Amino acid sequence: MTRVPAGESIAPLSSGELAGKAGQTATLSGMVMRIRRLSWGAFVILRRHDGLVQCIVSGEGSDAILENLTEEQAVVVTGLVKEAAIKDPSINPGNIEIQVESLTVVSSPHSRSPVDLSKKVLDLHIDNNLDLRPLSLRHPVERARLRVAEGFCRGFRDFLHQNGFTEIHTPKICLAGAEGGANIFPVKYFERTAFLAQSPQFYKQMGVGIFERVFETGPVFRAEPHQTSRHVNEYTSLDFEMGFITDHTDVMKLEVELLRHSLELLRAEYSPELSLLAVEMPEPPAEVPCVTLAEAHAITGAMGERDYSGEPDLDPEEERLLCRYAAQEWGCEFVFVTHFPTEKRPFYTMEDPDAPGTTRSFDLLFRGLEITTGGQRIHVYDMQVEKMIRFGLNPDDFSDYLQAHQYGLPPHGGLAIGLERLTARLLGVENIRYTTMFPRDVKRLTP
Amino acid sequence: MTRVPAGESIAPLSSGELAGKAGQTATLSGMVMRIRRLSWGAFVILRRHDGLVQCIVSGEGSDAILENLTEEQAVVVTGLVKEAAIKDPSINPGNIEIQVESLTVVSSPHSRSPVDLSKKVLDLHIDNNLDLRPLSLRHPVERARLRVAEGFCRGFRDFLHQNGFTEIHTPKICLAGAEGGANIFPVKYFERTAFLAQSPQFYKQMGVGIFERVFETGPVFRAEPHQTSRHVNEYTSLDFEMGFITDHTDVMKLEVELLRHSLELLRAEYSPELSLLAVEMPEPPAEVPCVTLAEAHAITGAMGERDYSGEPDLDPEEERLLCRYAAQEWGCEFVFVTHFPTEKRPFYTMEDPDAPGTTRSFDLLFRGLEITTGGQRIHVYDMQVEKMIRFGLNPDDFSDYLQAHQYGLPPHGGLAIGLERLTARLLGVENIRYTTMFPRDVKRLTP
Repeated sequence: MTRVPAGESIAPLSSGELAGKAGQTATLSGMVMRIRRLSWGAFVILRRHDGLVQCIVSGEGSDAILENLTEEQAVVVTGLVKEAAIKDPSINPGNIEIQVESLTVVSSPHSRSPVDLSKKVLDLHIDNNLDLRPLSLRHPVERARLRVAEGFCRGFRDFLHQNGFTEIHTPKICLAGAEGGANIFPVKYFERTAFLAQSPQFYKQMGVGIFERVFETGPVFRAEPHQTSRHVNEYTSLDFEMGFITDHTDVMKLEVELLRHSLELLRAEYSPELSLLAVEMPEPPAEVPCVTLAEAHAITGAMGERDYSGEPDLDPEEERLLCRYAAQEWGCEFVFVTHFPTEKRPFYTMEDPDAPGTTRSFDLLFRGLEITTGGQRIHVYDMQVEKMIRFGLNPDDFSDYLQAHQYGLPPHGGLAIGLERLTARLLGVENIRYTTMFPRDVKRLTP
Repeated sequence: MTRVPAGESIAPLSSGELAGKAGQTATLSGMVMRIRRLSWGAFVILRRHDGLVQCIVSGEGSDAILENLTEEQAVVVTGLVKEAAIKDPSINPGNIEIQVESLTVVSSPHSRSPVDLSKKVLDLHIDNNLDLRPLSLRHPVERARLRVAEGFCRGFRDFLHQNGFTEIHTPKICLAGAEGGANIFPVKYFERTAFLAQSPQFYKQMGVGIFERVFETGPVFRAEPHQTSRHVNEYTSLDFEMGFITDHTDVMKLEVELLRHSLELLRAEYSPELSLLAVEMPEPPAEVPCVTLAEAHAITGAMGERDYSGEPDLDPEEERLLCRYAAQEWGCEFVFVTHFPTEKRPFYTMEDPDAPGTTRSFDLLFRGLEITTGGQRIHVYDMQVEKMIRFGLNPDDFSDYLQAHQYGLPPHGGLAIGLERLTARLLGVENIRYTTMFPRDVKRLTP
């Protein structure tokens, strides 16, 4: 019998810790990202867990070090940490460099990379980028995009945890779809056919009866056959649901505060990534402008050539117009749209008694795109059963879900944010595949 | 146009904040959990987001309040917060109660609960408990179990984030299974057949080439046909993978530290739940005993009636015996077992050159059950291709995965922890369905 001790000590130095070691000797590991050979030796850029570090190989022994050094080797370097002022924003920390004293190669690649990772931006068609994802994601710009997504996810969870929400994990294999049956992927479940969850909607609402406030960050699956830059068929949904609301505006207020929190977290902890990606950060909003769908139509109708009045929804062009208007006229890059018509929202949406034919629902738009859908849900059993029937659904098919209403629910509502979409909008990236680690679409199931 | 302000102010008072309000008037919302009617009025227990609160309805106006009050109504109560010393451990905070001044019913259930939620422990067969999950989970004991799972999940993420890991989200719809093809659920993906991911293994390893250290907390899917108390077919897997290790023991050291962190977080922030569930908390270990599989066989063989020598794995009975031995002889409820034979571990497992026929793999056992599987992985392309062929696999089927090895990977390893299993072991709950919000098994697809 041996004993395994607790081993936090094996954590690598963070970029911040490394920056504080100027004048000292440090040992660090990393992957060789770039080698720039010069007459006196070479600059070697190491890719580490949280940034790139510039190493200098020069003087005695440098020939021996450089002779067999190649990109994508895993190495351990010991050297003096020296102050520096590096302009390349992909280098982090940028205020130190390592004067290499020794370098050990720990492992070497089998093949040379077909991609030049040292370019400022990857020079790859999107299909090649995605085909080579295990490699292309090693590029600093691609890495930084996923790190920003991480920041949003952390912000979401931390904020909700601080505000009395409980995290839940709900099943992804289900008997029916939350939105009523369309666009779902069938699964062969032993001898039966099941489906992949399009959203945790039903379970979140059950969760309100249990914990009053719940959230989940997990995958959702949509069998939509669209091959567009803003659709993927599997994505990460940030979902919450809260009880004891007055109406949908309580959910919206919480979302504004959540956005503030998340944007502040990004500014505080992800500034190297935001600076590398040259992100224009929106001011964390103290308040967000809000219009009804009818008001949105009036505004965009007056702006463009098209009359949107009477349209039951926003189309992509109208989302762009409205966001442009909100930024210019109201000084905010976010804008809420409320009161979508009853027939355009799912059967669990609360209707607005003060505006018949419309619902207590909302979308949040940001920089031209819908990033959130939410609203108040029906909590009254009889009302829900009546609406199911009106929507042509059989309440018996939803008996498990309806347990929540049957045995008592507070008034409640919630929302869902598409993580990859939100990240793409923040970064100004046109295709959400770039903010998805391994995207799935109609044509793509690999890597 | 209206403006939606940031709205953190609508967060409900936490139990801790409420406990600090003795002598003041407070307004709080909740679901009526129990009503104990007495000659002078009634005790009314409210279920809130983070605990139960005792309210007293007495004196003038109490008849009017109590006349129509029923369990599972959603109510808003205003009253004086008074000091109290409540013995029932399901009440939290237990040091105050509310002398009700006014009570408003916000919503009422449609049907009376078929379950008596006021009992100390739910008096339900497990099948009924699971059939009625939206209701049965409202019981304080059931809620507390899921809250402890939340604590483990938070501990896992927080610890890894602090130690330089990046969170990733990997696809659950894949072309092939990580473990080589068995026990996977087929999905009809447009015109093709895909599969649900059994583990994020391949993607974690690709992630090491990208971020060096990665983790994921998400669902995994196993089409195992076993109907046992320790199997479900969808569960939450806590996964991490780290680069630049010497061997599997670096992964084990990090896990010991992770366990310490998580157990300390639970003690600090989930004490009401742990106390309600009467959990015997293990001492956060400074070190964990570790034996090879051969040593484990020798120990358990000497304890029982059976000779385990030569067995390629641990069976459930042997896991129990070894844990009993570790607790008694080594004073630790955790025990590592290493060096499982090559043929019993997946094709990506690093073999141990010092102990031919065995691998640099480990299981962590806790209170009689395996809660973690991990090990060092193969990072060398040629070695991985050779082992695939030896295992009867065609490397061409894994060309996407092998990109990671081809273009360079550091030595690395990682592990996976089953969240529901770990929670069940901590709580002493025999069936992991009780620590799963909505379990899925061979027979169960609902609720």
